[in-house]
Amino acid sequence: MEILVVGSVALDSVETPHGNVDDAIGGAATFFSASACYFSKVNLVGVVGEDYPMDKINYLRDKKVDFSGLQIAKGQTFRWKGRYLDDMNQRETIYTHLNVFAEFRPHIPESYRNTPYVFLANIAPELQLDVLNQVKQPKFIGLDTMNFWIEGSNAALRKVLERIDVFMINDSEARQLSGRSNLLKAAEEIFKMGPKIIVIKKGEHGAALITKDHHFIAPAMPLAHVCDPTGAGDTFAGGFMGYITQTQDLSFENLKRAMIYGSVMASFCVQDFSLNALKNLTNEQIFTRVMDFKKLTHFSEK
Amino acid sequence: MEILVVGSVALDSVETPHGNVDDAIGGAATFFSASACYFSKVNLVGVVGEDYPMDKINYLRDKKVDFSGLQIAKGQTFRWKGRYLDDMNQRETIYTHLNVFAEFRPHIPESYRNTPYVFLANIAPELQLDVLNQVKQPKFIGLDTMNFWIEGSNAALRKVLERIDVFMINDSEARQLSGRSNLLKAAEEIFKMGPKIIVIKKGEHGAALITKDHHFIAPAMPLAHVCDPTGAGDTFAGGFMGYITQTQDLSFENLKRAMIYGSVMASFCVQDFSLNALKNLTNEQIFTRVMDFKKLTHFSEK
Repeated sequence: MEILVVGSVALDSVETPHGNVDDAIGGAATFFSASACYFSKVNLVGVVGEDYPMDKINYLRDKKVDFSGLQIAKGQTFRWKGRYLDDMNQRETIYTHLNVFAEFRPHIPESYRNTPYVFLANIAPELQLDVLNQVKQPKFIGLDTMNFWIEGSNAALRKVLERIDVFMINDSEARQLSGRSNLLKAAEEIFKMGPKIIVIKKGEHGAALITKDHHFIAPAMPLAHVCDPTGAGDTFAGGFMGYITQTQDLSFENLKRAMIYGSVMASFCVQDFSLNALKNLTNEQIFTRVMDFKKLTHFSEK
Repeated sequence: MEILVVGSVALDSVETPHGNVDDAIGGAATFFSASACYFSKVNLVGVVGEDYPMDKINYLRDKKVDFSGLQIAKGQTFRWKGRYLDDMNQRETIYTHLNVFAEFRPHIPESYRNTPYVFLANIAPELQLDVLNQVKQPKFIGLDTMNFWIEGSNAALRKVLERIDVFMINDSEARQLSGRSNLLKAAEEIFKMGPKIIVIKKGEHGAALITKDHHFIAPAMPLAHVCDPTGAGDTFAGGFMGYITQTQDLSFENLKRAMIYGSVMASFCVQDFSLNALKNLTNEQIFTRVMDFKKLTHFSEK
């Protein structure tokens, strides 16, 4: 089964206490694809400039990522630079150069329009709506957004929310969007906006899956060495959505597994810069870490 | 089996967005006892002033809390007042009046000195050492502390750490004490100071159990209504230590269960002010919530 992702493809420069990278492969759609491709075929829609080092993502073609929706526009690729402070949970943006991304208008190729699973990564809600108007009745739609759109494009975001199934959002963004500080109350408000499933991402504290009837919490894997958290949220989304696409099962039991696969992929992501730690995983490595999550969270009540 | 707790017995005034209480029953040793007494007999050592409303804690005698170590000193009881801000995870202290607690010197009654399980709640490390010099070879010792002692009584705290088994500490305090921002690295440093078991408390994000060989994470129970988080950490400690005292089993499997019982008791605590939600629990209510934690965290890998 296939999944369509629409989002940024970028070049990231990152400074951490452990080292730096310059113009490394980044972007939400890229991290998503590098993760989801372990579970399903991925159709990517995004834009890069003529300067984009395609050779660095060509390996993804062998992993069933389709780049026919990746536009190559005149100009420079979207570039972001950030610095992580000592505890790796705080970062500051040094620059954001949108470049060709500023004029991005997603065009969904004809061959992608029947893709049954769709993930709208963090871009302007107006563009997310535009994508939904191009695809043909997908089965299941996931959405990401950010504080910038909650503030600046609230009306458009509300329109997108009416049409999606699962909403992935940070805890602070959930509070901002709902106006409620308690996360369950925040989820109640967000359910009224449309989504049936909410995934609240909490960085090093893991993620919560909330439906009207059930809750599930997946911690983040404790790691002695966190190299670079950039892309962890998109990698989580790739594992979560990719697993759902593979299994085509929307039962709560299966959504829980999707949460764990998302957490597993994110835990690999942060262990190196860029896509490095996601490049050469085996299914066995992934499954071993699923079982590590089980050890980390399961108990017997006796 | 019995457990000894030494710590503050206080009167708390609390302001929250949902309401206020004045001079309500509080203090680390009190919350600990009100929680641990569901699992084992508790021997309490602390001090109150002549103004203390003993009638409000008398119910604990029926629950096997022994108050023969509670000194009644001339003067006023320790009083603390705090205010929780909107998201309940931030609080500000309005006042701290130590009163009789300023001169507290723990005296362990002869009848308590053979208590096999001991919990040193958050008091000056010098006093914690004094307690350890009065008790007779306890089997298992738990310790709490705070940033104030890490900064101001570091040498004494190090001496206590050499003599205890399980150290319960906030994530920010673990970072402060160890000088390491990564929590596993922080734990590695703290192991060198003596403890064999570390419990890192993360408030609404739950708690992590770390030994040299194993990790376990217990989330906090998501609750739609958090009334007052005061005492949640001490209530957690009471459930954790109380369960260990009851079961006398230090296997990692049993420590995991202790983490869950601690989390269960803390989840009750925050649902009302003071000890109110801890007063009339049944074993069935407690066990039902243990099973709720299981639903919240367990998954099948298929």
